[in-house]
Amino acid sequence: MTGRVDDVVDVVGTGSAVDASGDLGRSGLDGSAADASGDPGRSRLDGSTAAAGAAVRRARAAFERLDAVDRPEVWITLVDRADVLAAAADVDARVAAGADLPLAGVVLAVKDNVDVAGLPTTAACPSYATSPAGRPGAATVTAPAVQRLVDAGAVVLGKTNLDQFATGLVGTRSPFGAVRHATLPERVSGGSSSGSAVAVALGVADVGIGTDTAGSGRVPAAFHGIVGIKTTVGLVPTAGVVPACRTYDVVTTFTRDLALGALATRLMVGPHSSDPSGRTWPADAQLALRTTPVVGVPRAEDLVVLSPGWRAAFDEAVAAVVATGARTRTVDVSAMLDAATLLYDGAIVAERYEAVGAFLDTDPADADPTVAAIIRAGRDVPAHAYVADRARLAAARAEALDTLDGCDLLLLPTTTEHPTIAAVQADPVGLNRRLGTYTNFVNLLDLAAVAVPAGEADGGPFGVTVLARAFDDQLALDLAARLLHRTHEPSSPAAPAPADTSSPVSAPLVVDVGVDVLVVGAHLRGQPLHGELEDLGARYVATVRTSDAYRLVALATTPRKPGLVRVGPGHGAPIAGEVWRVSPGALGRLLAGLPGPMNLGQVELEDGTWVVGFGCTAEAGLTGADITWAGGWVAALRAGA
Amino acid sequence: MTGRVDDVVDVVGTGSAVDASGDLGRSGLDGSAADASGDPGRSRLDGSTAAAGAAVRRARAAFERLDAVDRPEVWITLVDRADVLAAAADVDARVAAGADLPLAGVVLAVKDNVDVAGLPTTAACPSYATSPAGRPGAATVTAPAVQRLVDAGAVVLGKTNLDQFATGLVGTRSPFGAVRHATLPERVSGGSSSGSAVAVALGVADVGIGTDTAGSGRVPAAFHGIVGIKTTVGLVPTAGVVPACRTYDVVTTFTRDLALGALATRLMVGPHSSDPSGRTWPADAQLALRTTPVVGVPRAEDLVVLSPGWRAAFDEAVAAVVATGARTRTVDVSAMLDAATLLYDGAIVAERYEAVGAFLDTDPADADPTVAAIIRAGRDVPAHAYVADRARLAAARAEALDTLDGCDLLLLPTTTEHPTIAAVQADPVGLNRRLGTYTNFVNLLDLAAVAVPAGEADGGPFGVTVLARAFDDQLALDLAARLLHRTHEPSSPAAPAPADTSSPVSAPLVVDVGVDVLVVGAHLRGQPLHGELEDLGARYVATVRTSDAYRLVALATTPRKPGLVRVGPGHGAPIAGEVWRVSPGALGRLLAGLPGPMNLGQVELEDGTWVVGFGCTAEAGLTGADITWAGGWVAALRAGA
Repeated sequence: MTGRVDDVVDVVGTGSAVDASGDLGRSGLDGSAADASGDPGRSRLDGSTAAAGAAVRRARAAFERLDAVDRPEVWITLVDRADVLAAAADVDARVAAGADLPLAGVVLAVKDNVDVAGLPTTAACPSYATSPAGRPGAATVTAPAVQRLVDAGAVVLGKTNLDQFATGLVGTRSPFGAVRHATLPERVSGGSSSGSAVAVALGVADVGIGTDTAGSGRVPAAFHGIVGIKTTVGLVPTAGVVPACRTYDVVTTFTRDLALGALATRLMVGPHSSDPSGRTWPADAQLALRTTPVVGVPRAEDLVVLSPGWRAAFDEAVAAVVATGARTRTVDVSAMLDAATLLYDGAIVAERYEAVGAFLDTDPADADPTVAAIIRAGRDVPAHAYVADRARLAAARAEALDTLDGCDLLLLPTTTEHPTIAAVQADPVGLNRRLGTYTNFVNLLDLAAVAVPAGEADGGPFGVTVLARAFDDQLALDLAARLLHRTHEPSSPAAPAPADTSSPVSAPLVVDVGVDVLVVGAHLRGQPLHGELEDLGARYVATVRTSDAYRLVALATTPRKPGLVRVGPGHGAPIAGEVWRVSPGALGRLLAGLPGPMNLGQVELEDGTWVVGFGCTAEAGLTGADITWAGGWVAALRAGA
Repeated sequence: MTGRVDDVVDVVGTGSAVDASGDLGRSGLDGSAADASGDPGRSRLDGSTAAAGAAVRRARAAFERLDAVDRPEVWITLVDRADVLAAAADVDARVAAGADLPLAGVVLAVKDNVDVAGLPTTAACPSYATSPAGRPGAATVTAPAVQRLVDAGAVVLGKTNLDQFATGLVGTRSPFGAVRHATLPERVSGGSSSGSAVAVALGVADVGIGTDTAGSGRVPAAFHGIVGIKTTVGLVPTAGVVPACRTYDVVTTFTRDLALGALATRLMVGPHSSDPSGRTWPADAQLALRTTPVVGVPRAEDLVVLSPGWRAAFDEAVAAVVATGARTRTVDVSAMLDAATLLYDGAIVAERYEAVGAFLDTDPADADPTVAAIIRAGRDVPAHAYVADRARLAAARAEALDTLDGCDLLLLPTTTEHPTIAAVQADPVGLNRRLGTYTNFVNLLDLAAVAVPAGEADGGPFGVTVLARAFDDQLALDLAARLLHRTHEPSSPAAPAPADTSSPVSAPLVVDVGVDVLVVGAHLRGQPLHGELEDLGARYVATVRTSDAYRLVALATTPRKPGLVRVGPGHGAPIAGEVWRVSPGALGRLLAGLPGPMNLGQVELEDGTWVVGFGCTAEAGLTGADITWAGGWVAALRAGA
């Protein structure tokens, strides 16, 4: 009943949300780089079968695009073309042999602080990959987060440039050169996961693997109009990653569309034997955002640091959130923003020294001076100060949760502005710090985040981040999907309508602890008890019919409910219903609160499968009026039953 | 469906387990101190109604016992007799007015590193309660853990002596004097919660509040033949506690019997607004130990540090575990034991400096030199070393969980030996360290622990500790209850037989996330699918009958099952069943795995209450043979149905 990895394929193959947000992700790039890439590799994701050769064609296209964009500073190590094509050919062969590879035809760019077997891991410091005090030699094992994507058919194109040791939000702090923005030459790319973001924005790669401690997986997404997904700390294994702050690091994805990012995230999430600090989905994880969520938005005074253009764009984003059907609530986020100071001004910086300080103590010539200064400042921090700061963080987290009380999610600008390279060079530390205003505190306070494009500002992309409580990642993804849908293609003729237009757009499911439940009466969407499902975080799966073994009766309950009574194959008729997925904990709570005469047990669907579903006692079934003729409760109500 | 605090009263008032382990707790003291105390205050717990005046009578008896034992070094601050009696009179008045106070008639001793409003908190360093660098003046707020007990009717008698700043396992490190053992004058009392343990062992107090970072809530329990319950870190609020190591501190109970300790623990557990680091029961918490658990036991080479007498006694304890019906599995615990070195030899000691280092830096004259030296050693630990040690602990925890794979619990000796005061004085650090061999690592590796008496060794009490994974506290309590039952009164004529002798003795339930489920067929104890309930951590609640609104039919299933069919009041007959409590997550999983034609919904019991229970589809109910005449499935099977 758990571990439904197969669902990934189903969702990707059939979900309307995927089609919608997939298209949205493309338009989210504002029609520039990604369109130019010709969107290779989408055949699999668009639901068609992966024809033999698709992965190879996509890999070839990646190299063509690589040559066309001529952006060598994006890459630290490129895999040999022949090896990439061989890996792609292997994927094609596996698909041809019947393997189910959800990422067949996907090209990966991996930040060079994440191990890929056979390649050096420099963390943007070449000597780190040769010094005995660093990680000398090529990696022998691929980081499990990446390996899971490779196992699913993705092909690694190369290792990307970054702010050295993942320290920075600008993308300029690397001896391999500042990573220029994909389309705005005078602006920074954002960091620290600069290369992976630009590789995706330029259409060279489909999924860019980043890491995020203070915003490194989000700020570059905002600058490029792409999606950055930073899960709850601990869900994605961090084994094989050069730590920035090991307690707070998260392996992230950049994608042009949300659906692919969610798919890759779902594949990456899960415990791994080499990741002792891993966390797993709780048994009562929320699987979907309610139809009318409450979204916290900051007060005006929490936004004064934004550039005027970004300030105006954020107001538009809030309006877009409202347009998705959400309600907003103004919350005071100043305490959260203040917590950010603990990241660099406090003792937490000692984590950076713990990670690579011994190497920097060898005075490598290729250390970035700004980065080295930050990390070396962590050397002499006393442990008791760190312990005290951790206690302050725990209190700040509790306060943040209090602030979010009554809100499902929180919306913030991803960063404050999009600076020029010259501006960063003039004030490398101060500007970097300002860019982290709305990202630095997030991992410290154990929140999940999804950065999405939200229009334009100051002549470039603008982005917001949807923040969620730990393990509420799916809620953030769902609002992100709705926001992309509303903001970016209000009238796109290419966008397929959702299968059920009454259903809010949602992102593919990344949580894998669900159980499917058939509802046929008062819990149906639009019926009086549907709110119970929403409160339990239930996720819409499908509109279905039962087999013809059931009769439907009208019960004398308040509110009025029908009872589904199994009478045997051919003795009833197909009855309309909806399948919703809930966590095991939510299912237990639903059952515990379910009044008689209702019950829950296996119900046979029209396609011959069985799911948990609503029924009623025999006693009630015998006394109710038979409304099987209507074919369903809603139809019966419409007919005046 | 959650938050069943009322259940505490039910369990204490009626449960056979309580009676059994209550008596066991008394005999667990080997007939010495507790018997001498005349066991005052047990009227409430023995199931009789709390007559007006019971709390006052218990309080008076406490003062009589206090005078009789003449052990002033046990106490740092005693509440004025008049104030204690007034508080007790208030409890009596509330009970007389109908208040449900499960701890009415319970006298509390509180370790003096835990705040009680109106009293100073010295942590066994008098100047700490006066110095501006300490916590000057009386506490203004009672620690929430203690306040919850007071709210339930307990009365605080005073604050108890401890190893200064909760640093030590010996009970000798205090300017208020070494706390002598309750009955063995030449032996140490154990620490750091020495006073609370001795107050309980002597029968002065009923519940002793301790704190436990490295074993302080367990080692003194072992030395006194009493029970020490150390929950999973974070479940009991630590607000109002002078930290030892704030990340690892747990507020604990000492009691003469397990039932009262479990009751107090249940009352103390739960989130509190002043406790930002609190954790809550997961939605899939286990509520009971399976009938035939697998208990890990260490290899012989992991036990070489034990005194010969303790070594022999541990073998007997393992035999006693087997006699409870458990299976044992030898596991290599050396990696766990090695993790203990990180507590004092590693960077974690910086947590002690963070807590009280600034105060010790004022060179208070009343600082214990051994304690001060340990804590000051934490001053110059660099934060990066602490971060690295935390990473080592995470790896060690993962390894510990691997070691426990296939085991429900782990049994260890609580400590290594029972030293004399002279031996401790001769080697204060080395012997203290040895005493922590089997306790130091426990909080570091996020395990729960229950220390219980297990016979005698070397002329004094011997004790073992049952260890459980985080949040499996109830499993440890349940094995502790079985062990006490088997070990300590194999033939006691005073011990009431359990209501159902096929049911293993278990401790009162401390987890409060349960849902009751009625089973009437194959899930009944002894029937083929009962193992599903055991795997889900289901807890036996009661043997019951349904109302007479049900008929029972024999279904054509494999394995054979009955179907309970509601036919209306008076149209059926009472049907025998069992109520089991499961977590919401477990209930969801049970339902998700439940094959047709079975279902779950509300079922009416003979007493008119309704619980979630098993039923079957109308279709199946109509086709099965009616066996209502048997009154239940087991009877029907016996009758050859």
